[in-house]
Amino acid sequence: MDQYPSKLIEDAVNAMSSLPGVGKRTALRLVLNLLKREPGEVENFATAFTRMRNEIKYCTQCHNIADVDLCAVCADTRRDTTVICVVENLRDVMAIENTLTYRGVYHLLGGIISPMDGIGPADLNIDSLVSRVGTGHVNEVILALSATMEGDTTNFYIFKKLSGIDVKITTIARGVPVGDELEYTDEVTLGRSIANRIMYENNLAR
Amino acid sequence: MDQYPSKLIEDAVNAMSSLPGVGKRTALRLVLNLLKREPGEVENFATAFTRMRNEIKYCTQCHNIADVDLCAVCADTRRDTTVICVVENLRDVMAIENTLTYRGVYHLLGGIISPMDGIGPADLNIDSLVSRVGTGHVNEVILALSATMEGDTTNFYIFKKLSGIDVKITTIARGVPVGDELEYTDEVTLGRSIANRIMYENNLAR
Repeated sequence: MDQYPSKLIEDAVNAMSSLPGVGKRTALRLVLNLLKREPGEVENFATAFTRMRNEIKYCTQCHNIADVDLCAVCADTRRDTTVICVVENLRDVMAIENTLTYRGVYHLLGGIISPMDGIGPADLNIDSLVSRVGTGHVNEVILALSATMEGDTTNFYIFKKLSGIDVKITTIARGVPVGDELEYTDEVTLGRSIANRIMYENNLAR
Repeated sequence: MDQYPSKLIEDAVNAMSSLPGVGKRTALRLVLNLLKREPGEVENFATAFTRMRNEIKYCTQCHNIADVDLCAVCADTRRDTTVICVVENLRDVMAIENTLTYRGVYHLLGGIISPMDGIGPADLNIDSLVSRVGTGHVNEVILALSATMEGDTTNFYIFKKLSGIDVKITTIARGVPVGDELEYTDEVTLGRSIANRIMYENNLAR
Protein backbone atom coordinates (compact mmCIF):
# COMPACT_ATOMS: atom_id res chain seq x y z
CA MET A 1 0.00 0.00 0.00
CA ASP A 2 1.27 3.45 -0.88
CA GLN A 3 1.38 6.10 1.78
CA TYR A 4 -1.93 7.53 0.52
CA PRO A 5 -4.74 5.31 -0.77
CA SER A 6 -5.60 7.73 -3.55
CA LYS A 7 -3.75 10.05 -5.93
CA LEU A 8 -6.50 12.64 -5.36
CA ILE A 9 -5.85 12.64 -1.62
CA GLU A 10 -2.12 12.81 -2.20
CA ASP A 11 -2.47 15.84 -4.49
CA ALA A 12 -4.74 17.58 -2.00
CA VAL A 13 -2.34 16.85 0.88
CA ASN A 14 0.59 18.16 -1.16
CA ALA A 15 -1.33 21.34 -2.00
CA MET A 16 -2.30 21.89 1.64
CA SER A 17 1.18 21.20 2.97
CA SER A 18 2.64 23.72 0.52
CA LEU A 19 1.35 26.36 2.93
CA PRO A 20 3.99 27.58 5.39
CA GLY A 21 3.99 25.75 8.71
CA VAL A 22 1.58 23.02 7.56
CA GLY A 23 3.11 19.54 7.69
CA LYS A 24 1.88 16.41 5.92
CA ARG A 25 0.08 15.13 8.99
CA THR A 26 -1.83 18.35 9.60
CA ALA A 27 -2.51 18.62 5.87
CA LEU A 28 -4.13 15.18 5.85
CA ARG A 29 -6.31 16.14 8.81
CA LEU A 30 -7.46 19.32 7.04
CA VAL A 31 -8.01 17.52 3.73
CA LEU A 32 -10.15 14.83 5.38
CA ASN A 33 -12.18 17.63 6.94
CA LEU A 34 -12.83 19.07 3.48
CA LEU A 35 -13.75 15.63 2.21
CA LYS A 36 -16.60 15.45 4.71
CA ARG A 37 -18.18 18.66 3.38
CA GLU A 38 -20.73 19.08 0.60
CA PRO A 39 -19.20 19.44 -2.90
CA GLY A 40 -20.62 22.96 -3.21
CA GLU A 41 -18.98 23.99 0.03
CA VAL A 42 -15.59 22.72 -1.15
CA GLU A 43 -16.15 24.59 -4.42
CA ASN A 44 -16.69 27.82 -2.45
CA PHE A 45 -13.64 27.07 -0.34
CA ALA A 46 -11.44 26.70 -3.42
CA THR A 47 -12.95 29.63 -5.33
CA ALA A 48 -12.21 32.03 -2.48
CA PHE A 49 -8.49 31.63 -3.16
CA THR A 50 -8.56 31.75 -6.97
CA ARG A 51 -10.89 34.77 -6.98
CA MET A 52 -8.69 36.55 -4.48
CA ARG A 53 -5.54 35.87 -6.51
CA ASN A 54 -7.11 36.84 -9.83
CA GLU A 55 -9.18 39.86 -8.82
CA ILE A 56 -7.12 41.47 -6.09
CA LYS A 57 -6.00 45.07 -6.62
CA TYR A 58 -3.32 47.09 -4.96
CA CYS A 59 -3.68 50.69 -3.84
CA THR A 60 -1.97 52.88 -6.46
CA GLN A 61 -0.68 55.12 -3.68
CA CYS A 62 0.56 52.91 -0.84
CA HIS A 63 0.51 49.39 -2.42
CA ASN A 64 -1.89 48.13 0.23
CA ILE A 65 -4.43 45.53 -0.84
CA ALA A 66 -7.65 47.11 -2.02
CA ASP A 67 -10.87 46.31 -3.83
CA VAL A 68 -10.68 49.60 -5.75
CA ASP A 69 -7.88 51.91 -6.93
CA LEU A 70 -7.33 53.53 -3.53
CA CYS A 71 -7.24 51.58 -0.28
CA ALA A 72 -9.53 52.50 2.61
CA VAL A 73 -6.77 54.41 4.40
CA CYS A 74 -5.64 56.46 1.41
CA ALA A 75 -9.26 57.18 0.47
CA ASP A 76 -10.04 58.45 3.97
CA THR A 77 -9.80 62.26 3.83
CA ARG A 78 -9.45 62.49 7.61
CA ARG A 79 -6.03 60.79 7.50
CA ASP A 80 -2.91 62.93 7.71
CA THR A 81 -1.15 62.45 4.37
CA THR A 82 1.94 64.35 5.50
CA VAL A 83 3.03 61.40 7.64
CA ILE A 84 3.92 58.09 5.92
CA CYS A 85 4.49 54.94 7.94
CA VAL A 86 6.70 52.45 6.05
CA VAL A 87 5.78 48.82 6.79
CA GLU A 88 6.53 45.43 5.33
CA ASN A 89 3.05 44.15 4.54
CA LEU A 90 -0.69 44.11 5.22
CA ARG A 91 -0.34 42.31 8.53
CA ASP A 92 1.71 45.19 9.91
CA VAL A 93 -0.87 47.70 8.68
CA MET A 94 -3.60 45.74 10.46
CA ALA A 95 -1.52 45.54 13.66
CA ILE A 96 -0.93 49.31 13.65
CA GLU A 97 -4.55 50.11 12.74
CA ASN A 98 -5.65 47.98 15.70
CA THR A 99 -3.76 50.28 18.07
CA LEU A 100 -6.18 53.09 17.03
CA THR A 101 -3.38 55.61 17.65
CA TYR A 102 -2.00 56.27 14.16
CA ARG A 103 -3.73 58.83 11.91
CA GLY A 104 -1.19 59.09 9.07
CA VAL A 105 -0.97 56.97 5.91
CA TYR A 106 1.13 53.95 4.97
CA HIS A 107 3.58 52.71 2.40
CA LEU A 108 3.88 48.94 1.98
CA LEU A 109 7.27 47.70 0.82
CA GLY A 110 5.97 44.21 0.07
CA GLY A 111 8.87 42.64 1.94
CA ILE A 112 12.26 43.53 3.37
CA ILE A 113 15.76 43.32 1.93
CA SER A 114 16.90 39.76 2.50
CA PRO A 115 19.82 38.51 0.40
CA MET A 116 19.34 35.03 1.89
CA ASP A 117 15.88 34.82 0.27
CA GLY A 118 17.06 36.60 -2.87
CA ILE A 119 15.08 39.77 -2.11
CA GLY A 120 16.90 42.96 -3.06
CA PRO A 121 15.85 46.63 -3.04
CA ALA A 122 14.55 46.35 -6.64
CA ASP A 123 11.96 43.79 -5.53
CA LEU A 124 10.43 46.21 -3.04
CA ASN A 125 8.25 49.31 -3.44
CA ILE A 126 11.09 51.67 -2.53
CA ASP A 127 11.26 53.80 -5.70
CA SER A 128 7.57 54.70 -5.37
CA LEU A 129 8.21 55.69 -1.74
CA VAL A 130 11.03 58.00 -2.82
CA SER A 131 8.85 59.67 -5.45
CA ARG A 132 5.94 59.98 -2.97
CA VAL A 133 8.22 61.71 -0.48
CA GLY A 134 9.82 63.71 -3.28
CA THR A 135 6.56 65.57 -4.02
CA GLY A 136 7.31 67.75 -0.99
CA HIS A 137 3.95 67.21 0.71
CA VAL A 138 5.41 64.78 3.24
CA ASN A 139 6.76 65.98 6.59
CA GLU A 140 7.68 62.70 8.24
CA VAL A 141 8.54 59.13 7.26
CA ILE A 142 8.17 56.61 10.09
CA LEU A 143 10.20 53.44 9.52
CA ALA A 144 8.24 50.61 11.16
CA LEU A 145 10.02 47.44 10.08
CA SER A 146 10.86 44.35 12.11
CA ALA A 147 13.67 44.73 14.64
CA THR A 148 15.80 42.21 12.79
CA MET A 149 19.02 42.38 10.79
CA GLU A 150 16.96 42.49 7.56
CA GLY A 151 14.73 45.23 8.96
CA ASP A 152 17.75 47.31 10.01
CA THR A 153 19.35 46.87 6.58
CA THR A 154 16.16 47.98 4.84
CA ASN A 155 15.79 50.94 7.21
CA PHE A 156 19.31 52.06 6.42
CA TYR A 157 18.81 51.63 2.66
CA ILE A 158 15.66 53.78 2.73
CA PHE A 159 17.37 56.34 4.99
CA LYS A 160 20.15 56.69 2.39
CA LYS A 161 17.67 56.89 -0.49
CA LEU A 162 15.76 59.71 1.19
CA SER A 163 18.87 61.58 2.33
CA GLY A 164 18.60 64.22 -0.41
CA ILE A 165 15.01 65.10 0.51
CA ASP A 166 14.05 67.51 3.28
CA VAL A 167 11.90 65.21 5.41
CA LYS A 168 11.99 64.03 9.03
CA ILE A 169 12.83 60.33 9.22
CA THR A 170 11.91 58.52 12.44
CA THR A 171 11.78 54.92 13.54
CA ILE A 172 9.44 53.27 16.02
CA ALA A 173 10.73 53.01 19.59
CA ARG A 174 12.49 49.84 20.70
CA GLY A 175 12.24 49.12 24.39
CA VAL A 176 10.79 47.02 27.15
CA PRO A 177 7.30 45.89 26.08
CA VAL A 178 4.43 47.22 28.18
CA GLY A 179 3.62 44.65 30.87
CA ASP A 180 6.98 42.89 30.65
CA GLU A 181 9.22 42.38 33.65
CA LEU A 182 12.64 43.97 33.49
CA GLU A 183 14.60 40.90 34.52
CA TYR A 184 13.27 38.86 31.58
CA THR A 185 14.04 41.49 28.95
CA ASP A 186 17.07 40.70 26.77
CA GLU A 187 20.20 42.84 27.23
CA VAL A 188 20.12 44.53 23.82
CA THR A 189 16.53 45.71 24.26
CA LEU A 190 17.15 46.81 27.83
CA GLY A 191 20.38 48.59 26.84
CA ARG A 192 18.62 50.46 24.02
CA SER A 193 15.69 51.39 26.23
CA ILE A 194 18.10 53.05 28.68
CA ALA A 195 20.12 54.78 25.96
CA ASN A 196 16.93 56.10 24.33
CA ARG A 197 15.19 57.00 27.59
CA ILE A 198 12.40 59.57 27.35
CA MET A 199 11.14 62.38 29.61
CA TYR A 200 8.77 60.99 32.21
CA GLU A 201 6.19 63.69 31.38
CA ASN A 202 6.08 62.53 27.76
CA ASN A 203 5.23 59.06 28.93
CA LEU A 204 2.45 60.34 31.20
CA ALA A 205 0.92 62.23 28.30
CA ARG A 206 0.03 59.00 26.46
CA MET B 1 -10.96 50.92 8.16
CA ASP B 2 -12.57 47.50 8.30
CA GLN B 3 -10.63 44.66 9.77
CA TYR B 4 -9.60 43.53 6.26
CA PRO B 5 -8.78 45.99 3.48
CA SER B 6 -10.54 43.87 0.88
CA LYS B 7 -13.64 41.68 0.67
CA LEU B 8 -11.61 39.17 -1.36
CA ILE B 9 -9.08 38.84 1.42
CA GLU B 10 -11.85 38.53 3.98
CA ASP B 11 -13.55 35.74 2.02
CA ALA B 12 -10.27 33.89 1.61
CA VAL B 13 -9.45 34.26 5.32
CA ASN B 14 -12.91 33.00 6.26
CA ALA B 15 -12.53 30.00 3.96
CA MET B 16 -9.11 29.18 5.37
CA SER B 17 -10.19 29.59 8.98
CA SER B 18 -13.14 27.23 8.40
CA LEU B 19 -10.54 24.46 8.63
CA PRO B 20 -10.29 22.89 12.09
CA GLY B 21 -7.58 24.41 14.28
CA VAL B 22 -6.88 27.34 11.94
CA GLY B 23 -7.59 30.72 13.54
CA LYS B 24 -8.09 34.05 11.76
CA ARG B 25 -4.50 35.14 12.36
CA THR B 26 -2.98 31.96 10.94
CA ALA B 27 -5.50 32.05 8.09
CA LEU B 28 -4.38 35.55 7.11
CA ARG B 29 -0.75 34.44 7.14
CA LEU B 30 -1.56 31.49 4.86
CA VAL B 31 -3.75 33.59 2.56
CA LEU B 32 -1.01 36.22 2.14
CA ASN B 33 1.35 33.39 1.24
CA LEU B 34 -1.04 32.29 -1.52
CA LEU B 35 -1.32 35.88 -2.71
CA LYS B 36 2.42 35.96 -3.40
CA ARG B 37 2.22 32.96 -5.73
CA GLU B 38 1.61 32.88 -9.47
CA PRO B 39 -2.11 32.78 -10.46
CA GLY B 40 -1.63 29.35 -12.07
CA GLU B 41 -0.15 27.97 -8.90
CA VAL B 42 -3.11 29.18 -6.85
CA GLU B 43 -5.41 27.64 -9.47
CA ASN B 44 -3.68 24.28 -8.97
CA PHE B 45 -3.88 24.70 -5.22
CA ALA B 46 -7.64 25.24 -5.36
CA THR B 47 -8.33 22.57 -7.98
CA ALA B 48 -6.66 19.89 -5.87
CA PHE B 49 -9.48 20.19 -3.33
CA THR B 50 -12.43 20.41 -5.72
CA ARG B 51 -11.12 17.51 -7.84
CA MET B 52 -10.62 15.41 -4.73
CA ARG B 53 -14.12 16.14 -3.46
CA ASN B 54 -15.80 15.55 -6.82
CA GLU B 55 -13.88 12.54 -8.07
CA ILE B 56 -13.08 10.60 -4.92
CA LYS B 57 -14.38 7.04 -4.69
CA TYR B 58 -14.84 4.78 -1.73
CA CYS B 59 -13.92 1.09 -1.61
CA THR B 60 -17.17 -0.89 -2.05
CA GLN B 61 -15.90 -3.41 0.50
CA CYS B 62 -14.31 -1.50 3.38
CA HIS B 63 -15.34 2.15 2.64
CA ASN B 64 -11.71 3.24 2.49
CA ILE B 65 -10.84 6.00 0.06
CA ALA B 66 -9.86 4.63 -3.34
CA ASP B 67 -9.24 5.71 -6.91
CA VAL B 68 -11.04 2.62 -8.19
CA ASP B 69 -13.81 0.31 -6.91
CA LEU B 70 -11.58 -1.63 -4.53
CA CYS B 71 -8.98 0.00 -2.30
CA ALA B 72 -5.34 -1.11 -2.39
CA VAL B 73 -5.73 -3.25 0.73
CA CYS B 74 -8.90 -5.07 -0.39
CA ALA B 75 -7.44 -5.58 -3.88
CA ASP B 76 -4.27 -7.14 -2.45
CA THR B 77 -4.74 -10.93 -2.66
CA ARG B 78 -2.01 -11.49 -0.06
CA ARG B 79 -4.10 -9.89 2.69
CA ASP B 80 -5.98 -12.14 5.10
CA THR B 81 -9.66 -11.42 4.46
CA THR B 82 -10.79 -13.51 7.45
CA VAL B 83 -9.63 -10.80 9.85
CA ILE B 84 -11.34 -7.39 9.77
CA CYS B 85 -9.96 -4.45 11.72
CA VAL B 86 -12.66 -1.87 12.48
CA VAL B 87 -11.34 1.71 12.50
CA GLU B 88 -12.77 5.19 12.46
CA ASN B 89 -11.17 6.64 9.35
CA LEU B 90 -8.34 6.72 6.84
CA ARG B 91 -5.86 8.20 9.28
CA ASP B 92 -6.19 5.15 11.52
CA VAL B 93 -5.68 2.85 8.52
CA MET B 94 -2.49 4.72 7.63
CA ALA B 95 -1.27 4.56 11.24
CA ILE B 96 -1.83 0.80 11.40
CA GLU B 97 -0.35 0.21 7.93
CA ASN B 98 2.76 2.09 9.04
CA THR B 99 3.35 -0.50 11.80
CA LEU B 100 3.86 -3.10 9.04
CA THR B 101 2.50 -5.75 11.42
CA TYR B 102 -1.13 -6.14 10.32
CA ARG B 103 -1.96 -8.41 7.37
CA GLY B 104 -5.77 -8.49 7.60
CA VAL B 105 -8.26 -6.11 6.00
CA TYR B 106 -10.15 -3.08 7.32
CA HIS B 107 -13.62 -1.68 7.77
CA LEU B 108 -13.94 2.10 8.05
CA LEU B 109 -16.88 3.32 10.10
CA GLY B 110 -16.49 6.90 8.88
CA GLY B 111 -16.73 8.20 12.45
CA ILE B 112 -17.75 7.08 15.93
CA ILE B 113 -21.03 7.31 17.80
CA SER B 114 -21.11 10.77 19.34
CA PRO B 115 -24.51 12.10 20.46
CA MET B 116 -22.86 15.45 21.26
CA ASP B 117 -22.00 15.90 17.58
CA GLY B 118 -25.27 14.39 16.43
CA ILE B 119 -23.61 11.24 15.08
CA GLY B 120 -25.64 8.08 15.67
CA PRO B 121 -25.15 4.46 14.54
CA ALA B 122 -27.16 5.10 11.37
CA ASP B 123 -24.57 7.64 10.21
CA LEU B 124 -21.80 5.06 10.33
CA ASN B 125 -20.91 2.08 8.11
CA ILE B 126 -22.08 -0.45 10.71
CA ASP B 127 -24.77 -2.29 8.72
CA SER B 128 -22.29 -3.10 5.97
CA LEU B 129 -19.90 -4.43 8.63
CA VAL B 130 -22.61 -6.72 10.00
CA SER B 131 -23.39 -8.07 6.52
CA ARG B 132 -19.67 -8.53 5.74
CA VAL B 133 -19.22 -10.54 8.93
CA GLY B 134 -22.53 -12.33 8.29
CA THR B 135 -21.19 -14.00 5.14
CA GLY B 136 -19.39 -16.48 7.40
CA HIS B 137 -15.94 -15.98 5.85
CA VAL B 138 -14.74 -13.84 8.75
CA ASN B 139 -12.99 -15.38 11.78
CA GLU B 140 -12.10 -12.29 13.79
CA VAL B 141 -13.21 -8.69 14.14
CA ILE B 142 -10.64 -6.42 15.79
CA LEU B 143 -12.16 -3.27 17.28
CA ALA B 144 -9.51 -0.54 16.97
CA LEU B 145 -11.30 2.66 17.96
CA SER B 146 -10.07 5.52 20.11
CA ALA B 147 -9.83 4.83 23.85
CA THR B 148 -12.49 7.45 24.58
CA MET B 149 -16.06 7.37 25.87
CA GLU B 150 -17.33 7.59 22.27
CA GLY B 151 -14.99 4.82 21.17
CA ASP B 152 -16.13 2.57 24.00
CA THR B 153 -19.79 3.26 23.19
CA THR B 154 -19.24 2.40 19.53
CA ASN B 155 -17.30 -0.74 20.46
CA PHE B 156 -20.16 -1.91 22.65
CA TYR B 157 -22.78 -1.13 19.98
CA ILE B 158 -20.88 -3.16 17.37
CA PHE B 159 -20.30 -5.96 19.89
CA LYS B 160 -24.08 -6.18 20.46
CA LYS B 161 -24.84 -6.03 16.73
CA LEU B 162 -22.47 -8.92 16.03
CA SER B 163 -23.58 -10.99 19.02
CA GLY B 164 -25.71 -13.37 16.89
CA ILE B 165 -22.82 -14.21 14.57
CA ASP B 166 -20.15 -16.82 15.34
CA VAL B 167 -17.04 -14.65 15.17
CA LYS B 168 -14.21 -13.82 17.54
CA ILE B 169 -14.39 -10.18 18.62
CA THR B 170 -11.20 -8.63 20.01
CA THR B 171 -10.06 -5.14 20.86
CA ILE B 172 -6.58 -3.65 20.68
CA ALA B 173 -4.57 -3.75 23.91
CA ARG B 174 -4.63 -0.73 26.21
CA GLY B 175 -1.54 -0.33 28.34
CA VAL B 176 1.62 1.58 29.06
CA PRO B 177 3.02 2.91 25.74
CA VAL B 178 6.37 1.46 24.68
CA GLY B 179 9.10 3.83 25.87
CA ASP B 180 6.94 5.51 28.51
CA GLU B 181 7.95 5.70 32.14
CA LEU B 182 5.61 4.04 34.61
CA GLU B 183 5.38 6.96 37.02
CA TYR B 184 4.00 9.27 34.30
CA THR B 185 1.33 6.86 33.10
CA ASP B 186 -2.21 7.77 34.19
CA GLU B 187 -3.90 5.52 36.77
CA VAL B 188 -6.62 4.16 34.48
CA THR B 189 -4.13 3.01 31.86
CA LEU B 190 -1.76 1.59 34.46
CA GLY B 191 -4.63 -0.18 36.24
CA ARG B 192 -5.84 -1.73 32.99
CA SER B 193 -2.34 -2.78 31.99
CA ILE B 194 -2.02 -4.70 35.28
CA ALA B 195 -5.49 -6.24 35.04
CA ASN B 196 -4.84 -7.34 31.44
CA ARG B 197 -1.27 -8.47 32.02
CA ILE B 198 0.14 -10.96 29.51
CA MET B 199 2.54 -13.91 29.69
CA TYR B 200 6.13 -12.72 29.51
CA GLU B 201 6.94 -15.22 26.75
CA ASN B 202 4.23 -13.71 24.55
CA ASN B 203 5.85 -10.33 24.87
CA LEU B 204 9.27 -11.72 23.97
CA ALA B 205 7.83 -13.25 20.81
CA ARG B 206 7.12 -9.85 19.25
